[in-house]
Amino acid sequence: MEGLSVADAQRCILETIRQLGSEEVPLQQALGRTLAEDVQANRDQPPYDVSAMDGYALRSADVTQSPTVLKVIADIKAGDLPTCTVQAGQCARIMTGAPVPQGADAVIRVEDTQALTADTVQINVPVKPRNDIRDRGESMRCGATILPRGTELTPGAVGLLAMVKRAQVAVYRRPRVAILSTGDELEGLDEPFDANKIPDANSYALMAQVQALGIEPVLLGIARDRPEHLREMLQRGLQFDALLVSGGTSVGVHDFVRPTLEQLGVQMKFWGVAMKPGHPMAFGTAPLTWVFGLPGNPVSSMVCFEQFVAPALRCMSGLPRLYRRTLNARLAHAIKHRPGRSEFVRVTLRQEGDTYIATSTGAQGSGILSSMAHAEGLLIIPAASNGFAAGDTALVQLLDGTAFQSSPAGE
Amino acid sequence: MEGLSVADAQRCILETIRQLGSEEVPLQQALGRTLAEDVQANRDQPPYDVSAMDGYALRSADVTQSPTVLKVIADIKAGDLPTCTVQAGQCARIMTGAPVPQGADAVIRVEDTQALTADTVQINVPVKPRNDIRDRGESMRCGATILPRGTELTPGAVGLLAMVKRAQVAVYRRPRVAILSTGDELEGLDEPFDANKIPDANSYALMAQVQALGIEPVLLGIARDRPEHLREMLQRGLQFDALLVSGGTSVGVHDFVRPTLEQLGVQMKFWGVAMKPGHPMAFGTAPLTWVFGLPGNPVSSMVCFEQFVAPALRCMSGLPRLYRRTLNARLAHAIKHRPGRSEFVRVTLRQEGDTYIATSTGAQGSGILSSMAHAEGLLIIPAASNGFAAGDTALVQLLDGTAFQSSPAGE
Repeated sequence: MEGLSVADAQRCILETIRQLGSEEVPLQQALGRTLAEDVQANRDQPPYDVSAMDGYALRSADVTQSPTVLKVIADIKAGDLPTCTVQAGQCARIMTGAPVPQGADAVIRVEDTQALTADTVQINVPVKPRNDIRDRGESMRCGATILPRGTELTPGAVGLLAMVKRAQVAVYRRPRVAILSTGDELEGLDEPFDANKIPDANSYALMAQVQALGIEPVLLGIARDRPEHLREMLQRGLQFDALLVSGGTSVGVHDFVRPTLEQLGVQMKFWGVAMKPGHPMAFGTAPLTWVFGLPGNPVSSMVCFEQFVAPALRCMSGLPRLYRRTLNARLAHAIKHRPGRSEFVRVTLRQEGDTYIATSTGAQGSGILSSMAHAEGLLIIPAASNGFAAGDTALVQLLDGTAFQSSPAGE
Repeated sequence: MEGLSVADAQRCILETIRQLGSEEVPLQQALGRTLAEDVQANRDQPPYDVSAMDGYALRSADVTQSPTVLKVIADIKAGDLPTCTVQAGQCARIMTGAPVPQGADAVIRVEDTQALTADTVQINVPVKPRNDIRDRGESMRCGATILPRGTELTPGAVGLLAMVKRAQVAVYRRPRVAILSTGDELEGLDEPFDANKIPDANSYALMAQVQALGIEPVLLGIARDRPEHLREMLQRGLQFDALLVSGGTSVGVHDFVRPTLEQLGVQMKFWGVAMKPGHPMAFGTAPLTWVFGLPGNPVSSMVCFEQFVAPALRCMSGLPRLYRRTLNARLAHAIKHRPGRSEFVRVTLRQEGDTYIATSTGAQGSGILSSMAHAEGLLIIPAASNGFAAGDTALVQLLDGTAFQSSPAGE
């Protein structure tokens, strides 16, 4: 038995996830959070008809033919409240964002004019009514919902909140996350060097993956292979919204983790997913905590995090987009695969014209963490696949840190 | 004169950028930073040949035919240092990550065996030499450079640093960034509501864009249209590595910003880029500061930030990837364009089979910030383009917050 499919395991997890409660945060801390309220506009924006250009506010009827010379009767900048009225043959010098004065029904940009004297200007092109005027309420109408509950607060959304003067905003709480490594073979980051031990990389790789989601996790350290110590550490972890335990979840005889979790009231939903790397992935729920049993190998653990933990943590945070973005890439080389498990191959990406080309980072052993450190994406081989030939197209899941590329757009 | 092309403006900026100095940070703060040193492996990893599976360590010569029954002489778990030697007809129960005992040259996974008694096991399949053994030094060899200077510290890289016990690491300093809005028409977030004023959205949208790069900026507030006040605020901003000034950089007569910057010793490199939105974009350098003059319209300002400021701040931080990732998308509808300026159209994206489909977020007025709040990407219309027909393919620059998608991979 190979275990659940990746998709079934994702569904099994997400079916149990509840969105956490909400809290008020200052706008300075709102980026990346999910709105827990509908936000309405508190005014018309712009509050009056404004110029979209630096230029001259005029009566379009005066400039149906060009060139035309007009008299400049005022000088209006953003923030002014003009009192003048533009009459036939007149215009007002106006800046971008400044209110359009009475009488004027269009704006001509300064580039299409020529100042003749201090108070006369030649308009070089004909101008249509409403040209380069932004209408009152064009950006937002007072009372309209501009950001619905559930919106992910991107920089643009943060700007929009500032636009409606929301210095505080209700967002969903982010999960509190605990990370625990297990195993006598592990050496902690602050412990002395022992050539026979294996440094605990998992805690820190998982820490960074959680940080990449905007959450600061708590590292509980290493639980040793003594039942009472493991039990105490797991108990501490169950105080959090999410507990990530790495190691100790496979089927070996020295596995205390699963029975100990069960004794502590965790209901295991699955152990084993038909994937490579990551087969020993397990998941369970306690009344207040979701427990993710991650493989002991750092690469497996990281791949499982991306497939199962990241979507779950984002779901708890109320975020609408749960899964790492995918794109299609052409394979630089063949990849073998025996049907049975989904496989995630660490790849680098390069652009060639319109196409992304994916190349394996090399040896794919699940202990080879450097392959993960240098990867830009995970190429997905579906469970039923017989492998890919060079030039085939496959789906690549982008990894953290790949929101940016080396070349400017189109190069 | 339409100004520099986007690419020329990017080059002009990046030619002036110096990578900042380095600093030591704890591993907990290393994510997203750039390594300022070469990092070497401090040991072989794994430190000995280890099992890649839970199963039995055996002599492959004993199991050239199957099934074969072997005697179990030991029980080895990860962290053990086995003293036994596996002789002909013998094997040792072994866990993933545990050292392979002397005499054994292969591992068979437990799924391919059947325990007969407490100390005998039937091996059901033939096993090749080295099967499921991870070689000593497979993941890393002591002394080898595993992460070169200039590497962006992804979660995998952070894990690798933990693997070589680097609790502290040298990274390039991130720029200190100041944000200043200008204009009498602006109303600060904490100022009372005035229907005739325009809330200062720019400061907060830019703040969030800077935060999205992992940098906490300093908001200087709003400089009013009085020369001495503006001068004082700009002077304060020039104490930072990067100063972002929004508003006041277009060609209107009330523009104090440019001359004041020049009086303060800023050498302006350009003002005006042939792009829409974002035309009034300006850039200058002072001895210790890079100055970005951003348009007063929030959308223009945000688009310019993505094209010019983000690459510059990432370059100062020593990061290898400077530009927002792009992908090709098919247009859901036609888009008009008059040759002259590059245009950036806010779009949403959806996946349809192998293809991304881009749809405009609607009205593209540069004051319409909601179009930016809901956008997933910026579709790029090259300056020389005559527009696109529905179904055409165009380049889309992904925006922050889009590292994730709604559907699991391939759905």
